[in-house]
Amino acid sequence: MKGILWPRRSFPSMRNFIIVGHLAKTTPDFSLEDIPGTSGRMDILCRCINSAFMLSHGIRKDVRVLLVLLGGEVQKTVCLRGEDLRHLNPDERTTAALIKKALAVPATPSWTMSTSGIFVRTGGLPELLEGMKSGRLFYLKEDGSEVRGKDLPQDATFVLGDHQGMTEPEEALLAAARAEVISVGPVSLHADHCIVIINNELDRVEMKNQK
Amino acid sequence: MKGILWPRRSFPSMRNFIIVGHLAKTTPDFSLEDIPGTSGRMDILCRCINSAFMLSHGIRKDVRVLLVLLGGEVQKTVCLRGEDLRHLNPDERTTAALIKKALAVPATPSWTMSTSGIFVRTGGLPELLEGMKSGRLFYLKEDGSEVRGKDLPQDATFVLGDHQGMTEPEEALLAAARAEVISVGPVSLHADHCIVIINNELDRVEMKNQK
Repeated sequence: MKGILWPRRSFPSMRNFIIVGHLAKTTPDFSLEDIPGTSGRMDILCRCINSAFMLSHGIRKDVRVLLVLLGGEVQKTVCLRGEDLRHLNPDERTTAALIKKALAVPATPSWTMSTSGIFVRTGGLPELLEGMKSGRLFYLKEDGSEVRGKDLPQDATFVLGDHQGMTEPEEALLAAARAEVISVGPVSLHADHCIVIINNELDRVEMKNQK
Repeated sequence: MKGILWPRRSFPSMRNFIIVGHLAKTTPDFSLEDIPGTSGRMDILCRCINSAFMLSHGIRKDVRVLLVLLGGEVQKTVCLRGEDLRHLNPDERTTAALIKKALAVPATPSWTMSTSGIFVRTGGLPELLEGMKSGRLFYLKEDGSEVRGKDLPQDATFVLGDHQGMTEPEEALLAAARAEVISVGPVSLHADHCIVIINNELDRVEMKNQK
């Protein structure tokens, strides 16, 4: 897996979710007995993973989640890829254990596989946005324009902040990358709930286009 | 809190979510270190609580969650009421700890308070449906009619199954109570994701009606 900027893709279109964890640890020294208190709120990112992948019977294969972890000396990104993701359960603790494993892998600027479908590298949001080759980019924010009726493309990347929201420099990066600012409704929601609503919107668009 | 069938309500309209946990323990003897493996999948119910109450900044006061726990000798129902709910955090573990506390309280057919905003009693779905005094009843199922455009009432009760879905006798009960069968989209989702989508739909209806 060395030498490539972005884990390969074999689906014609992919739903990508980038979540920025401003305090999230980049080292595996946090406790599964107190995830919110010891990991820089990795629990938020675990719930985002659940929202992005989980279906009643199985996981979404055409989804990729990219966790940008900024709570360490060196920024890291963890990628979870639906098509070959294994051992993912819906609960927070087992998801956090998978992230912990990925953070124990020595990270370089190239992707290294941790467990099946989970990759890690150094670098953060700038590197991710640079590496994006196709698809439209959306930034989820309270004052964005209404997502419904937008006829969202299936090949798209959605960027979400954690409980701290996004910083001004991050917003500037997203603007430079021509991200469209969208909102999922009239009430400010946690990132994991926003992802559920985006997936639902994409499911509906997909169904409509298949008809 | 003795002697009343249903915890009092002080909001003009309430969003009620009933989730039936077919294997969920009715006793507090499960481990917070392995919630999915020891509690009869209480993790599913914890995620439903998160979806029902959590906002970016605070919790929804006009929501009530009723967990029907069927994995014990005596059926129990735990009620969480937004208007006076305290100590609720978004992570699964602390939510499971609150449920554990409620299950340690001696339960009778009347509601008994555990911690602020959390009540417990014996009885299950039949007792809940009998006690419903107002508002429309909805049952969420894959083949139900499309929720969008239904102009959902704010005063309503939504019934959801866990990973096992609902049994035939439960479906018969719901039919007798004139539950409308609705669906939140083209893909079968976990109960917690359905609740996020229902809350979003209700937020949108509320905003539209306020205009």
